[in-house]
Amino acid sequence: MQRSEHMSLQTELMAKLAADKPELISLRRYLHAHPEVSYHEKHTAAYIKHYYEQLGMTPQDFGTGYGFVVDIHGGLPGQTLAVRADFDALPVQEENDLPFKSVNPGVMHACGHDVHTAYLMVLAKALNELRDQLHGTIRILHQPAEEVAPGGAPDMIAGGVLTGVANVIGAHIQTTMPTGYIGYHAGPTQAGGARFDLTITGHGGHASMPQLSNDAIVAGSYFVTAAQTIVSRRLDPFAFGTVTIGSFDGASAAYNAIRQQVVLKGDVRVMAEDTRKLIHQQVATLAKGLEAMFGVTCDLQYQEGAPVMVNDPDFTDQVATALKSTNLAGVTEVGDCGALNPSEDFAFYNHYVPSTYFYVGAAVADGKVHPHHSPDFLVNEDSLLIAAEAMGTAVVAYSQAQG
Amino acid sequence: MQRSEHMSLQTELMAKLAADKPELISLRRYLHAHPEVSYHEKHTAAYIKHYYEQLGMTPQDFGTGYGFVVDIHGGLPGQTLAVRADFDALPVQEENDLPFKSVNPGVMHACGHDVHTAYLMVLAKALNELRDQLHGTIRILHQPAEEVAPGGAPDMIAGGVLTGVANVIGAHIQTTMPTGYIGYHAGPTQAGGARFDLTITGHGGHASMPQLSNDAIVAGSYFVTAAQTIVSRRLDPFAFGTVTIGSFDGASAAYNAIRQQVVLKGDVRVMAEDTRKLIHQQVATLAKGLEAMFGVTCDLQYQEGAPVMVNDPDFTDQVATALKSTNLAGVTEVGDCGALNPSEDFAFYNHYVPSTYFYVGAAVADGKVHPHHSPDFLVNEDSLLIAAEAMGTAVVAYSQAQG
Amino acid sequence: MQRSEHMSLQTELMAKLAADKPELISLRRYLHAHPEVSYHEKHTAAYIKHYYEQLGMTPQDFGTGYGFVVDIHGGLPGQTLAVRADFDALPVQEENDLPFKSVNPGVMHACGHDVHTAYLMVLAKALNELRDQLHGTIRILHQPAEEVAPGGAPDMIAGGVLTGVANVIGAHIQTTMPTGYIGYHAGPTQAGGARFDLTITGHGGHASMPQLSNDAIVAGSYFVTAAQTIVSRRLDPFAFGTVTIGSFDGASAAYNAIRQQVVLKGDVRVMAEDTRKLIHQQVATLAKGLEAMFGVTCDLQYQEGAPVMVNDPDFTDQVATALKSTNLAGVTEVGDCGALNPSEDFAFYNHYVPSTYFYVGAAVADGKVHPHHSPDFLVNEDSLLIAAEAMGTAVVAYSQAQG
Amino acid sequence: MQRSEHMSLQTELMAKLAADKPELISLRRYLHAHPEVSYHEKHTAAYIKHYYEQLGMTPQDFGTGYGFVVDIHGGLPGQTLAVRADFDALPVQEENDLPFKSVNPGVMHACGHDVHTAYLMVLAKALNELRDQLHGTIRILHQPAEEVAPGGAPDMIAGGVLTGVANVIGAHIQTTMPTGYIGYHAGPTQAGGARFDLTITGHGGHASMPQLSNDAIVAGSYFVTAAQTIVSRRLDPFAFGTVTIGSFDGASAAYNAIRQQVVLKGDVRVMAEDTRKLIHQQVATLAKGLEAMFGVTCDLQYQEGAPVMVNDPDFTDQVATALKSTNLAGVTEVGDCGALNPSEDFAFYNHYVPSTYFYVGAAVADGKVHPHHSPDFLVNEDSLLIAAEAMGTAVVAYSQAQG
Repeated sequence: MQRSEHMSLQTELMAKLAADKPELISLRRYLHAHPEVSYHEKHTAAYIKHYYEQLGMTPQDFGTGYGFVVDIHGGLPGQTLAVRADFDALPVQEENDLPFKSVNPGVMHACGHDVHTAYLMVLAKALNELRDQLHGTIRILHQPAEEVAPGGAPDMIAGGVLTGVANVIGAHIQTTMPTGYIGYHAGPTQAGGARFDLTITGHGGHASMPQLSNDAIVAGSYFVTAAQTIVSRRLDPFAFGTVTIGSFDGASAAYNAIRQQVVLKGDVRVMAEDTRKLIHQQVATLAKGLEAMFGVTCDLQYQEGAPVMVNDPDFTDQVATALKSTNLAGVTEVGDCGALNPSEDFAFYNHYVPSTYFYVGAAVADGKVHPHHSPDFLVNEDSLLIAAEAMGTAVVAYSQAQG
Repeated sequence: MQRSEHMSLQTELMAKLAADKPELISLRRYLHAHPEVSYHEKHTAAYIKHYYEQLGMTPQDFGTGYGFVVDIHGGLPGQTLAVRADFDALPVQEENDLPFKSVNPGVMHACGHDVHTAYLMVLAKALNELRDQLHGTIRILHQPAEEVAPGGAPDMIAGGVLTGVANVIGAHIQTTMPTGYIGYHAGPTQAGGARFDLTITGHGGHASMPQLSNDAIVAGSYFVTAAQTIVSRRLDPFAFGTVTIGSFDGASAAYNAIRQQVVLKGDVRVMAEDTRKLIHQQVATLAKGLEAMFGVTCDLQYQEGAPVMVNDPDFTDQVATALKSTNLAGVTEVGDCGALNPSEDFAFYNHYVPSTYFYVGAAVADGKVHPHHSPDFLVNEDSLLIAAEAMGTAVVAYSQAQG
Repeated sequence: MQRSEHMSLQTELMAKLAADKPELISLRRYLHAHPEVSYHEKHTAAYIKHYYEQLGMTPQDFGTGYGFVVDIHGGLPGQTLAVRADFDALPVQEENDLPFKSVNPGVMHACGHDVHTAYLMVLAKALNELRDQLHGTIRILHQPAEEVAPGGAPDMIAGGVLTGVANVIGAHIQTTMPTGYIGYHAGPTQAGGARFDLTITGHGGHASMPQLSNDAIVAGSYFVTAAQTIVSRRLDPFAFGTVTIGSFDGASAAYNAIRQQVVLKGDVRVMAEDTRKLIHQQVATLAKGLEAMFGVTCDLQYQEGAPVMVNDPDFTDQVATALKSTNLAGVTEVGDCGALNPSEDFAFYNHYVPSTYFYVGAAVADGKVHPHHSPDFLVNEDSLLIAAEAMGTAVVAYSQAQG
Repeated sequence: MQRSEHMSLQTELMAKLAADKPELISLRRYLHAHPEVSYHEKHTAAYIKHYYEQLGMTPQDFGTGYGFVVDIHGGLPGQTLAVRADFDALPVQEENDLPFKSVNPGVMHACGHDVHTAYLMVLAKALNELRDQLHGTIRILHQPAEEVAPGGAPDMIAGGVLTGVANVIGAHIQTTMPTGYIGYHAGPTQAGGARFDLTITGHGGHASMPQLSNDAIVAGSYFVTAAQTIVSRRLDPFAFGTVTIGSFDGASAAYNAIRQQVVLKGDVRVMAEDTRKLIHQQVATLAKGLEAMFGVTCDLQYQEGAPVMVNDPDFTDQVATALKSTNLAGVTEVGDCGALNPSEDFAFYNHYVPSTYFYVGAAVADGKVHPHHSPDFLVNEDSLLIAAEAMGTAVVAYSQAQG
């Protein structure tokens, strides 16, 4: 009986989603055309809230930004599952020639958050209609500011968005994976990180008398070359880790003045907390060593950032099993896609409650690569319904598991 | 007879200069209070010209800037000797508390060009009054824009200012030498130089995926460390040479983006033309090598700048002998001060005609150092009359030598 | 019936091994006391062969070294499974105080090949006695020279040792894993590698005249610092890879001569063939770039070495399942131990036929670490019987699977 | 009268030297054929002493090596002037094809000390014959071990060789100067120096696990690159200074072991004592900094070596004037040759008493360069008599000046 109940809910949900495909595409296109950068998603948030309010659903703000949730209270007892989508865009000028191309100059949904938001809106509508058959509460979580560290997640969490939430689930469309493919991975899955500001101060002077100065550009350059050894010699070759100097500010109008000061900005990525500690300690050691070696002074400001995104093995297995055991129309494969290099502030949810994050292939079959964050980022729109169906399937399975 | 004639002209000139000391101080203070940066010395030039015009002397423009000369035609036949003073100021905010402190915010006569100009004005006035006793022509040369490479000299030369000129003489006050000291040096005396812009282009990307990028900050840093070998390993230890990266522009708002491009500005100083060639060739080699080593592309724009200032040995000896053999009131020592590190666009005059440049000590006896180009640059005003007397003595000797 | 047959063979084999424990310990101690370094294992090979010959078994040489096999022809039809143990020792001076301490100065079984050899001898004896019940052929493979690249494996393979062999299995005792633990891993499991010799030639000369020379030590040092970028910037952070300069030969009796030439030896480790290609290409690029940057000439001799040891997933699963499903006396856990950093020439067998290599914990419970290759390397002798039983179990399961 | 006296002594001496030219050539050829390396000049010293003893002159040992003097007591009162020649050879295999080619394999007079010794022997003989006309004492000083730091000079000085000596004079033949040219220079003339041993200790390990080691080759390489900044950024561009790492001993038979330790040998050259102090301090700072930066330990053994050779201005002028005012047969020019890069332990004599050292051109006119210390070092034998005559002239002038 349970099984037939399941099938019927699952079947009903899939039917609703399939029927709403035109709305799904339309919502996404509107969002795509009207992108807003992180922390400035005022109209985007209003647009989404309006959609829910028209449906008689009640948005509830969390955090200090534009983030909010809509809770769907099931008719059956059970835990709360949060389903999260992010809705901010990037400071990128769209180069695609689309009817729904971004109308905001220099701003673009170049990472697919428009897709995330649209599929979740349509899924939320359908789940709300079927809520009597659901266990517990489905918390539809619309999050801002994923693209800018530390991301909108910690702020919403600080605002209490996880109170009473048993698990969080999220998904990202990937134009680097074929449409029809769904990827998952248990354990460390997306990199955590840190950033630092290193101000190196020497002593300025005239280029014809270097002996009276202490050249900060020279010291900074030796720092950069020495910093390469952190990854090359200090990390276990099995450990994921990067140290990037993303900014070397030693610019001057003058050619003939020896620079007194340079400011470096550093970015660190890791897949394990011991790697994080090791890199932090090594950067600090190199900065101290630079002082001793070149007689400069180093001011190091080091901020730990997003945690490693660690997908809960049991929960991930549960979701993967549900996706594998259900025949979804456009899905050709559900597989372990391994870990991914970039960071994702979803990691903060994983940090507090058992959570998982999966990936929905969205490659356009035009023989080109349309990488995330690029001006020609392009999504196969078939991935929208697949994302809604996959997440819907995961939600139904979660609900049924409590039956 | 010649000798008595000499003594009389010399004595007369010294008397006039001594009498004009108050005017000399006053002129200098006005100039000090109203500094203008290189290439923008509009009011300064007008002020000096007005002084000459009131005296019935005729300024004559040369070059495309504010530079001009006043020719004093002697009553006796002979060659033309140019006496040059520069009149531009620096983009420095004066920190001295003086009644005649700079009234122009962020601009200061922090190198003594106000002194140079004032002493030359008063000297010109006196020489003009004594012109019947002078051989040839004394070309009073007021030059702009010494502080900014390539300096105002080549432009005035291109404008014809050296046409018919047999020799050029100049002087610089030096707060690093004691007041009363006059220094000279034959041969290479101030550094020549070059400058370059090196644009290093790699491939941008995301800090979590360095393998997809080519980090221009890393390449630029290795360039800077490798560039140290030019001086340390390629130059004869006897050769004067410097290579300074005065600007390393790899600044970025982002921490997490791998820099696609950095722009370096380089400054080169030499005391010999073969050193100049060697350094140019080495910088070019390193840039080519960087391309081969790191797969970046390097665009090197290399401009040769001021020549080495080579004081003509015979003319220098003639001037030094005149100064040594004349008992000037405030002068305690006339000596070979050796070569100096900085460059000076007077070198262009040396390049075309036998010229010499000497130094007039101007240290304030307050136990502090007031270095050139610093916000607390401070001149002992006794040096003004000394400079006028010394240069006057050199001019008289030059004139007499033609008798 | 099959199952009872299996149980009976397995039970019988375990009983024989347990009974031979004293012999096993004794054989291992003899081998431990008489170690011989790679390619010089003359007496070791003779000792092992003598053991087999006394048992009426026939050693058969393969390759150009001291390697040989003993084939055990089962009474039942089936494939040939090779079981491999290595028998060379290391140029290490033993610091343990043992009754069977190495009697050969400067040579020590500091990696446990004595254990490998001893357990395989005793296992071979037992299997030979039970051969009527075995399917196919069990090829007992005693291999020399594992410790020195490229290892004894490729030579024996070139000699035909894999002809007709369906699979190879091997095991390594690990003092870094607890005694009782058996580890396995599918896919890339031990690093492959390469090595290179880089001769950098500049131009010698006298330290007081660097401009007449081209300092090879300076060029070599910049190469080493630049080589750090291969791992830090060129590799995917997920990729295992190392580039080590293990030798920098720029030694000279003189202080005051600029070195004409230095010779660097490099070691490369990878876990994937695309990483191998990338590093090879990068080392070559850096060497070419060094020539362009510093005007030296670089002679790069680059030899690809051992392949990545890729354990066949199916075969590994088959062995792991057999070990997990059998209750072996001293075994506390059979688990996936992940990949290991070092290389192992067993990888050559994997390269040709589906093979697998597992790990037998051998830690001594004295609170100290006794790392492989160290002078105080120390094995828990309980691991000997465990190794024999585990390998015996794998062989029986393999045989039964053909029934 | 003085002048005619002078001329007569000078004339007589020149005549004697000219007459002894065959002996001079012969002595030099014998010495050339029988070279001995520094500190091992046993037979050379015996050969020279035998020469003097046959002439009734009395050699007197000084120091702990083979050095000795022969004093020529003049018939007239006056000061003691020491004339020094060095007699050690180099560990070089001669490649010249000469009748008097070195018969000692791997040893060669490749710096001309054979010439120095021979001309001084013949000159001493002649001066001895003319001693009645000489003022004071001429101390003929034959010194060993010039080629190996710190040189034989400080040892002879410690042995008292300068007791009672007013001045020392010496000369070096130079194949880089034309035959007939005599060069002199006042003030700093040949570089002083220092040497150091830097042992950098990290932590050894296996190339596949760099994180467990601390790579001494990497640390040493960064030291070398950082050490370039001493000359490029710390020295006044006018200052002569070099820092050479002449030996980088990180050689290993193994490719795959991370080096625990490397040993660097450094050579330092300076022309001023403040440069010496600056470099010493900078090397020490860099070594300390390396510890802080890379976590290695640095053991720095720093030995100050030869002082800068500072030719006494008055004494140099006196000698130069004598040489210029005397018409010597083969001499085409006597000029200020400037300072020279290499060091010379004659500097120790300058350090204690006013001394001077001059240079005698000895180039062979074959269109090739035969540099000092090279296997094809070749001397124009005309320079032998010139050296004897020039030094004789200096001695006579010195003597006459006391008349």
